[in-house]
Amino acid sequence: MGDVRLFLEAKSVAIIGVSSTPEHRGYNVINNLVSSNYSGEIYNVNPKGGEVLGYRIFSRIEEIPGEPELAVILIPAKSVPQALRELGEKKVKAAIIESAGFAETGREEGIELQRDVLEIAKRYGIRLIGPNCMGTSNFSNGLVTSFTNLTGVKRQNIAFLTQGGIFGGALLMELAQSLGCNKAITLGNEVDATETEFIDYLADDPETRVIGLYIEEIKGKGRFLDIAKRATRKKPVVILKGGVTEEGAKAVASHTASLAGNYIVYEAMFKQSGIIQAYSLEEFLDYLKIFSYMPLPRGNKLGVVSTSGTLCILTCDASSKLGLEVPKLPAETQQKMRDRAEAWVSNLSNPVDSGGDRDTFKAAAHHLFKEPNIDMVSINIAAAGVGLDMVTETVASVVGAYDKPFALCVFGSSSIVAELKEWDKKSLVPVYPSPDRAARALNALYQYTRNKEA
Amino acid sequence: MGDVRLFLEAKSVAIIGVSSTPEHRGYNVINNLVSSNYSGEIYNVNPKGGEVLGYRIFSRIEEIPGEPELAVILIPAKSVPQALRELGEKKVKAAIIESAGFAETGREEGIELQRDVLEIAKRYGIRLIGPNCMGTSNFSNGLVTSFTNLTGVKRQNIAFLTQGGIFGGALLMELAQSLGCNKAITLGNEVDATETEFIDYLADDPETRVIGLYIEEIKGKGRFLDIAKRATRKKPVVILKGGVTEEGAKAVASHTASLAGNYIVYEAMFKQSGIIQAYSLEEFLDYLKIFSYMPLPRGNKLGVVSTSGTLCILTCDASSKLGLEVPKLPAETQQKMRDRAEAWVSNLSNPVDSGGDRDTFKAAAHHLFKEPNIDMVSINIAAAGVGLDMVTETVASVVGAYDKPFALCVFGSSSIVAELKEWDKKSLVPVYPSPDRAARALNALYQYTRNKEA
Repeated sequence: MGDVRLFLEAKSVAIIGVSSTPEHRGYNVINNLVSSNYSGEIYNVNPKGGEVLGYRIFSRIEEIPGEPELAVILIPAKSVPQALRELGEKKVKAAIIESAGFAETGREEGIELQRDVLEIAKRYGIRLIGPNCMGTSNFSNGLVTSFTNLTGVKRQNIAFLTQGGIFGGALLMELAQSLGCNKAITLGNEVDATETEFIDYLADDPETRVIGLYIEEIKGKGRFLDIAKRATRKKPVVILKGGVTEEGAKAVASHTASLAGNYIVYEAMFKQSGIIQAYSLEEFLDYLKIFSYMPLPRGNKLGVVSTSGTLCILTCDASSKLGLEVPKLPAETQQKMRDRAEAWVSNLSNPVDSGGDRDTFKAAAHHLFKEPNIDMVSINIAAAGVGLDMVTETVASVVGAYDKPFALCVFGSSSIVAELKEWDKKSLVPVYPSPDRAARALNALYQYTRNKEA
Repeated sequence: MGDVRLFLEAKSVAIIGVSSTPEHRGYNVINNLVSSNYSGEIYNVNPKGGEVLGYRIFSRIEEIPGEPELAVILIPAKSVPQALRELGEKKVKAAIIESAGFAETGREEGIELQRDVLEIAKRYGIRLIGPNCMGTSNFSNGLVTSFTNLTGVKRQNIAFLTQGGIFGGALLMELAQSLGCNKAITLGNEVDATETEFIDYLADDPETRVIGLYIEEIKGKGRFLDIAKRATRKKPVVILKGGVTEEGAKAVASHTASLAGNYIVYEAMFKQSGIIQAYSLEEFLDYLKIFSYMPLPRGNKLGVVSTSGTLCILTCDASSKLGLEVPKLPAETQQKMRDRAEAWVSNLSNPVDSGGDRDTFKAAAHHLFKEPNIDMVSINIAAAGVGLDMVTETVASVVGAYDKPFALCVFGSSSIVAELKEWDKKSLVPVYPSPDRAARALNALYQYTRNKEA
């Protein structure tokens, strides 16, 4: 059977179960394709016929003129086997079954339907994603097949893959408002195409800078390990594993009908392959963001500057727990700052606690970036008693100015927080709401540097 | 010397270093008092004289008619000792020194000034907060003395106390936009009035439902332990400790000029006193929120419902790591739901994975609240492929309907996320952006229940 390329690059797609009613799932799919400027052929099928967005709706699959490469299936589970046979006759090479009602229900009927579907696909040589998924989305070529409304997703350099459908859709909607996305794959019950095949594909995809995985179970661990090792040599791979506890694993069994397996085996495998593991959904997104926005550090030495002594302390606590170092600035650099600082400025050694002293805040940021013994910088703003312009002036002056990664923590005044979040959305600066999260994100960058060197 | 009550209840206040220029620190103080409807007397002092917000500005302290109970001092450090002497002559009983430039600079001059100030205060029997702080704020009676602009803070049931000034100000601004606040105390260099005295005060304050502490060093640990034990029997106390690592402790020394001390001693003390420890700034805020909004659970049994199997799994992973239990619903309850559920709904046992099935989602939420073997509920919404009305209908129907705590995790569609965040701001539902944070917050409630019973 063919590789998984078609799921992201098909030149023609048939929508089985299209709808002309806005907000309906079958409508969202064609609307996503059209509004994402998909340039391939689109064929629509629904027994009711009619028209949608200027496209004709065929009432039966066999009416489709030509041979679509990919089919997106949205009809009720029990009708899927017959549709798949008809698509096979049409020489369709890949199908995404988004319908639910298969093995994930835990009921005999669904399990049997899933078995049927796989058998038919094999017979016709059709590669499958799903059932029970939210399709694939390629924001580079507009092949966006998810049944949620995904208009307006910013084309970026993150690709992610999830087992589980609705979660993948929600993740995409979350990214749409923030980091943007390049490619998204939701595998659902994963009856055929696997995470490993897609990681293999994404490793070579020039538009993907970082790969995010939400995984409950990995099929074919030996092959996964080989491919993951190859991928992590080329780009960072971040994983969030579901079912790491017994309770979680039980919930997995009733979700995608797969077994979570022994977490210790997974953890060893992730470590061995150089995959960065995130331990919560938030960490997962935090890591994707910093890998998407920032260059890699050479080492683990962190520079810290803040308008608040407390944020200096919390950053040092967090980074120290992670094994990052906070080396003192050279005495002459400290003296240079001291000569120009307000009398009440306390610590200039690193961490630098500038308080609300505009000149010291800015000078410290630049000294930290310039210092050869510092690999990355954490800028922490407690936005109280400081002006928006003091903050933006300093941040603007470091963006793009150095080949060292940095993270921003901002906290307090709503106007300053809102302004920096806008900068974040433009992928200029990775903003985090707490010093811990900024430190963990920087540490993830360092972990990747270290893994690559190992 | 008197107790710390005056810092939050003074009937008259003098602002030493007031300003008539909007945005200036000395202006913010009087503006905060006026816009918070402080009903006590306000006396303003600045050598320039003039007027501000309709109030006369006296050019010298001795011109003040009458005897203000409290003074807020904003003038440069070197002028503070003389001002304090003059305030002493005026029979002022308490002073908040917000000016920086004292021991926190680490320089001899500042250390000496701080010594002088304390000596003068003792001589005149003046209780002190600061120096290097952001004052105190009481949103119940309008005595808001912080030099940051704090107009529009929602009067709520949270009180917090911080060492470190700017951070306290930023925290207040953060709370102003979200949880609201009742009382805030920033201690700065803490030359006199201590956290222990304020905890003692807040323990008996009927308007305070939960106390949050950011602490670097505790002076007088024996007394603290006694008072903290008394306070936690009355209401939850949440602590974020700065300087828990060696690096962090070093940063503390150059911040508020105090020593962080041995963290292990602190940890034992927190445990012994029943204080809930937060391990990051975010956890600190997450815990304050759930204690502010929700009743306490009777035990550790968690009900979980989600539109996404993945969020079910991530919640079970998180809660299981914390030691919470996720007991199965009785078979007959499951059957009741099964009879009315869409065919594709998978897990009804707890966690309940309703997918986008509106009726099942709502029914499951209510079954979980009603089940005697369940103490609290985590509602997780992956907002993709579900309508806003399905979510709001269910959430609205559980708000205030049961005497069990719950937390909401919402993720995905921007309109659903935005709507629920509005509900959060109204203190109706504690919303968290990830299942882990919702689970940890619920666990904090349970920790408090358990500590109280111990």
